[in-house]
Amino acid sequence: MLTIAGTDFRSRLFLGTGKFSSSAVMAEAIAASDCQMVTVALRRVNLDNPEDDIMKALSQRDYTFLPNTSGARNANEAIRLAHLARAASGSSWLKLEVTPDPRTLLPDPVETLIATEELVKAGFIVLPYMNADPILALKLQDAGAAAVMPLGSPIGTNQGVLTDAMIEIIIEQARVPVVVDAGIGAPSHAAYAMEMGADAVLVNTAISIAGDPVAMAAAFAKAVEAGRTAYIAGMGRRSKQASASSPVTGTLSSDLGFLA
Amino acid sequence: MLTIAGTDFRSRLFLGTGKFSSSAVMAEAIAASDCQMVTVALRRVNLDNPEDDIMKALSQRDYTFLPNTSGARNANEAIRLAHLARAASGSSWLKLEVTPDPRTLLPDPVETLIATEELVKAGFIVLPYMNADPILALKLQDAGAAAVMPLGSPIGTNQGVLTDAMIEIIIEQARVPVVVDAGIGAPSHAAYAMEMGADAVLVNTAISIAGDPVAMAAAFAKAVEAGRTAYIAGMGRRSKQASASSPVTGTLSSDLGFLA
Amino acid sequence: MLTIAGTDFRSRLFLGTGKFSSSAVMAEAIAASDCQMVTVALRRVNLDNPEDDIMKALSQRDYTFLPNTSGARNANEAIRLAHLARAASGSSWLKLEVTPDPRTLLPDPVETLIATEELVKAGFIVLPYMNADPILALKLQDAGAAAVMPLGSPIGTNQGVLTDAMIEIIIEQARVPVVVDAGIGAPSHAAYAMEMGADAVLVNTAISIAGDPVAMAAAFAKAVEAGRTAYIAGMGRRSKQASASSPVTGTLSSDLGFLA
Amino acid sequence: MLTIAGTDFRSRLFLGTGKFSSSAVMAEAIAASDCQMVTVALRRVNLDNPEDDIMKALSQRDYTFLPNTSGARNANEAIRLAHLARAASGSSWLKLEVTPDPRTLLPDPVETLIATEELVKAGFIVLPYMNADPILALKLQDAGAAAVMPLGSPIGTNQGVLTDAMIEIIIEQARVPVVVDAGIGAPSHAAYAMEMGADAVLVNTAISIAGDPVAMAAAFAKAVEAGRTAYIAGMGRRSKQASASSPVTGTLSSDLGFLA
Repeated sequence: MLTIAGTDFRSRLFLGTGKFSSSAVMAEAIAASDCQMVTVALRRVNLDNPEDDIMKALSQRDYTFLPNTSGARNANEAIRLAHLARAASGSSWLKLEVTPDPRTLLPDPVETLIATEELVKAGFIVLPYMNADPILALKLQDAGAAAVMPLGSPIGTNQGVLTDAMIEIIIEQARVPVVVDAGIGAPSHAAYAMEMGADAVLVNTAISIAGDPVAMAAAFAKAVEAGRTAYIAGMGRRSKQASASSPVTGTLSSDLGFLA
Repeated sequence: MLTIAGTDFRSRLFLGTGKFSSSAVMAEAIAASDCQMVTVALRRVNLDNPEDDIMKALSQRDYTFLPNTSGARNANEAIRLAHLARAASGSSWLKLEVTPDPRTLLPDPVETLIATEELVKAGFIVLPYMNADPILALKLQDAGAAAVMPLGSPIGTNQGVLTDAMIEIIIEQARVPVVVDAGIGAPSHAAYAMEMGADAVLVNTAISIAGDPVAMAAAFAKAVEAGRTAYIAGMGRRSKQASASSPVTGTLSSDLGFLA
Repeated sequence: MLTIAGTDFRSRLFLGTGKFSSSAVMAEAIAASDCQMVTVALRRVNLDNPEDDIMKALSQRDYTFLPNTSGARNANEAIRLAHLARAASGSSWLKLEVTPDPRTLLPDPVETLIATEELVKAGFIVLPYMNADPILALKLQDAGAAAVMPLGSPIGTNQGVLTDAMIEIIIEQARVPVVVDAGIGAPSHAAYAMEMGADAVLVNTAISIAGDPVAMAAAFAKAVEAGRTAYIAGMGRRSKQASASSPVTGTLSSDLGFLA
Repeated sequence: MLTIAGTDFRSRLFLGTGKFSSSAVMAEAIAASDCQMVTVALRRVNLDNPEDDIMKALSQRDYTFLPNTSGARNANEAIRLAHLARAASGSSWLKLEVTPDPRTLLPDPVETLIATEELVKAGFIVLPYMNADPILALKLQDAGAAAVMPLGSPIGTNQGVLTDAMIEIIIEQARVPVVVDAGIGAPSHAAYAMEMGADAVLVNTAISIAGDPVAMAAAFAKAVEAGRTAYIAGMGRRSKQASASSPVTGTLSSDLGFLA
């Protein structure tokens, strides 16, 4: 069972809500994914209006809402957004995103750390989005982050976990859950992150732009379970050397005896 | 539904039976995998003796047995093994393996083609193991192979689908099912093969040498379903360019209005 | 020094002559590459006419011409082309290409083996283009091929040496030179093939379609030398574990002593 | 010509001096590499003692010495080391390394930025070693770094440029030279970094632990030139689709006419 800030999660798949063709499709995909953690851009939703399309779509079951500070270009903007969100929603959960450059949408390590420190002090449950930087992960953890969310590859690219060498180090060192975020473009990518020992993955684009987002959400749910189960089951080592699955013992002529 | 030679398969995961610590573990892993096609080295099992350990282990449910010619170094040896197997078991299914070099266990393209032609004429249902060679795949298909089984990487190495560029071409051209065989070392590898459009995968070592083979078998089953579902759902394209999951519209100050 | 069929080659870079914008550019690129082996499609050149554009361009220095059977769809067509080429040119060198499918231009393993056997008997010096199939490489070698030319990736794709796992096995087993052909799209790819222990590489598209083909030819020449030198110099192992280039001994405070 | 802080460099290969078997081998390798920038751990050399082994070995020609702060765990330690180095050597060049964790030796983004700001103000020519973090690269550049040195993979692992997706963004955005540092384990890796548009690479372990470090240094020199030349010459695009190097026009029978 995954536990973040004292809350238990049965599912290790987190979903983003951007780019869906409609709120209805989004709601159906979220249901099919069986996920329990949903991130929503603060700027896209009116948290205190139950008639808001997204809020209505999400109201049918119990999710942990993870408002994100998408669009914040520095710590101050992120902090301001966070406080407004909490005031409106009553929830302290926060996916912290500080991305100064709208072209790359890559996170700012320094401003992210500053905002994490501030927001933790202010009582938020902070899950910072970050580059796959092991030292920064340690700093964020020390600053009180409830989890760290290193990126697999640039957001929206579907390129997978290109940062695996660094993610492995982050996982090895972490005392808080590691959630791989951004770039996960296929169920195989999600399974791979989980096989490495990630605690969860966040997926958005790969589901929302799929031909059939609802089926794709179900596919990701299975892949995350597969990867987690494999991690716990203990995977074999890769090797350069071939080895027979069917051991060959003795010569063919003698072996054929039993069939005669 | 996967159909090979007129037989339908609900599961797209095939299992090998080598290297398990015991027949009991093997039987349990096969059950957990929910697979319906099991390959057995002819040399390791006494097909007409129900007291044989492997036969007993496998007798509890309805599998399609896929005897393999593991150890055959040329077409003649493979053909001889195939006939002996059919005489003993009454089944015409055959995974054709012709591997002249016991160190690499890589398949021989020429002898495999010759044996396929002969065995098809003799009424066998032939699934040849082969290098990821698109032209050879066409020839084997033309020779009457019921499916083709290109390798992902050298057998037993767990290196995954290193041959993906060629497998993609094989899949695109195939009129018979394509089963990726050998080298699949993790659920993520299996999912990846299925996402490409493979019809099934065969896994052995990665399950049999796992810390917990039964859990690992279940993990592979989910990964195969995830990959197949994703393939059908239509995956999005990879891109080099970042794109926000949470679209940013307008400036921050104006957007914050709704939360005020 | 590379030796093929008794002929020594100082350069381990072979060039193809297709797709150049003009014969003049081609000739200049070949000169800049310092290569000594040039392959020419039989169908594109009139070997016995010194006024032919390509022949004129290539006449200024001593190359080994390696006519190729580009376009041959089976052994018979390749054999016919080979004999016509020898009659016209007087040379027995031959790059054997048998590619039944004009869309993929991938080699046919069976027809390539048949043609190799025939042409070797007929006195040709045969260098067959082939899939990266270790068993086929052994068969071609046994049939008298003067070298084997496994592909790195589909021709013209510039994807590099995707088949490295198989190329390594081919190199390890070979008693004749191994020339990596097709798919080499950058000097780094050529260097990589040489670092693995390939004896030479053949490059065409990556040079002929470069912005500046002459400079690119020089770049490939250096990369091939770099890779070869590194192979001989003995490369260090990759590791998963960081290790300081600058060993840290003692604590900082004590170490700073020497600078005080 | 590469220019850093007003100094021109003919060579784009920088060398580290750790792990050589002897100072004599190191000096010979540096000479063979034709490099003009050599980094030395402050803690390993006595800069003002011309009898120091390393200083003697390096005295034979004109290098730019790039003292590094290897071993510094935070900004303060790095700044102190930097000042001591300048006092002893009279040079303001500095490779800034701030690595809090001696196991991974990965750089600290926050402390590196603080130290860069301080040292630039104090008149140093600062080249910070950093994770492949595009936003941090912009910040370091804005803080006055003379170049940025993103890592390819963890130091000493020889795994190559695993961070290529991020390095590409760093290069695209940079107004100062980008020097890929750490992890470059083969000439092909160095060529690849240069093909992407890196301005230089720093290599140490791959040369110092080679079987023949002097030959390996020469190999890297050629590979760097090859990659740089290719970058300038304009590389072709990769594609998924095969395309013939030797265009096939018309049918075989008609084409053979010219050879008749």
